[in-house]
Amino acid sequence: MKPRAAKKMAKPMRVAFQGELGAFSQEAIRQLLGDRAQPVPCQRFDQVFAALKAGDTDAAVLPIENTLAGSVHENYDLLIKYDFEITGETSVRIVHHLIAPPDVTFRDIRRVYSHPVALNQCLDFFARHKNIERITFYDTAGSVKMVMAERPEGGAAIASELAAKNYGGRILKREIEDDRQNFTRFFLLEPRGSKPRTPRGSVKDWKTSLVFSTRNIPGALFRALAVLALRDLNLVKIESRPLRGKPWEYLFYIDLIGHREDQKVRNALGHLAEFADFLRVLGSYRAA
Amino acid sequence: MKPRAAKKMAKPMRVAFQGELGAFSQEAIRQLLGDRAQPVPCQRFDQVFAALKAGDTDAAVLPIENTLAGSVHENYDLLIKYDFEITGETSVRIVHHLIAPPDVTFRDIRRVYSHPVALNQCLDFFARHKNIERITFYDTAGSVKMVMAERPEGGAAIASELAAKNYGGRILKREIEDDRQNFTRFFLLEPRGSKPRTPRGSVKDWKTSLVFSTRNIPGALFRALAVLALRDLNLVKIESRPLRGKPWEYLFYIDLIGHREDQKVRNALGHLAEFADFLRVLGSYRAA
Repeated sequence: MKPRAAKKMAKPMRVAFQGELGAFSQEAIRQLLGDRAQPVPCQRFDQVFAALKAGDTDAAVLPIENTLAGSVHENYDLLIKYDFEITGETSVRIVHHLIAPPDVTFRDIRRVYSHPVALNQCLDFFARHKNIERITFYDTAGSVKMVMAERPEGGAAIASELAAKNYGGRILKREIEDDRQNFTRFFLLEPRGSKPRTPRGSVKDWKTSLVFSTRNIPGALFRALAVLALRDLNLVKIESRPLRGKPWEYLFYIDLIGHREDQKVRNALGHLAEFADFLRVLGSYRAA
Repeated sequence: MKPRAAKKMAKPMRVAFQGELGAFSQEAIRQLLGDRAQPVPCQRFDQVFAALKAGDTDAAVLPIENTLAGSVHENYDLLIKYDFEITGETSVRIVHHLIAPPDVTFRDIRRVYSHPVALNQCLDFFARHKNIERITFYDTAGSVKMVMAERPEGGAAIASELAAKNYGGRILKREIEDDRQNFTRFFLLEPRGSKPRTPRGSVKDWKTSLVFSTRNIPGALFRALAVLALRDLNLVKIESRPLRGKPWEYLFYIDLIGHREDQKVRNALGHLAEFADFLRVLGSYRAA
């Protein structure tokens, strides 16, 4: 065994994420990097990026879009503010459970704490139980931690099974989310150059994410998409964000099928660079 | 004078908006409908739509995007849930002032209340005054109302000049926003069919907003944009939102220059309808 590999074995990868232990991001870390990766909780998204930049962690895992709530726009903005590489993606099914201390029964519950997005994804539950008050909390897993530690009277939390396990909570009601088609997509971020660039497997196994802006002239976005379509490259996601200092102009984030080292993708990127004011490839990674 | 016009003169238009009196939305109402329009405050965006649907108001005015924060996605979702017509747009420059009761001086200020978006747009101010705490509040104008009524010790608010006037607050520091290029675009909504459809003036005076979805096949968005580009129609905004029940598929909201009754726009809409799964014109209105 080479010494470098041995060293790698000895030291688990440290991975920054937003939220408390037991957050859905922790499940994403497990899916992406296995059980040995060590999740490092951060309070805010910008602190996740800052932790990776400072070298406090080896990687970061961030939610980028949810099938019900849409894109996490703050993270799109941070992707461009910092300059890390997207080296992986995964999708986590969001399942919400009602969690309380083990000696509390469902009839005791009067108020439920959770992140506002989670509360809004369990509206049917609250419609059926009108005597239960919703109280917004900064984090889903954090709401379980708080309910277990402070035991507010008649209090329960909405969070993942992992959060219940983590803090010793009991699941009173399983799967109380309104919509089963509730998935969150996560990106794995690493410092630039930490992964080899040569793709293995077929073109369809890979995705490439990029961001660009074009001058605000008629048909600019159309021309940008034509660069892909003319090469039969499949666009799977487009997101626009305002361009700072240029009112009503936008940055476009695009995900396409293929690796940046594929000839067609290289040609398309070269073509786009001919007329984009700004272009950055955010990374190529295995499609989830 | 016809009786109907007389009746209209007698009864000012009631216009629902989100926030307290003095919100930037109230300035948008003034710009769109003049001083006679009567603003009707609502706590949440969905209540604004509900007020118009119930006939409690004649119109609604809603923020749809900000040049720094981006689109107000909740309102894009509500535009499709309800079926009103966009009959106007306007743009309001967002100027934030530090506001306190008249007998309070700047040196007294220890905590500042406002909407989180407003607080985040005054970061330079808070960096210069590190002894001042930021406290999030549900509304900018509402924070002035609260500071004037409850007079929390060392408390001030961040809001518009209109909010200061409305509640008798004094402006302690003017224009404390980080970025002068801070504009919010508002839509005027009215029940379908309340406005005549014939455009006056040149094509460039008008905008048309539409929403569509296409099956998730390669190049679908490209083809949709080609429908416009092939007719030299200028796309000025595109926004995507997740399609409920179809993970990783999207609805696209598009704003283009031109009126829906222009021949080229009619042709483009017909062409788009040939392959879109879903298509709805949200309205044609004078470009701000």
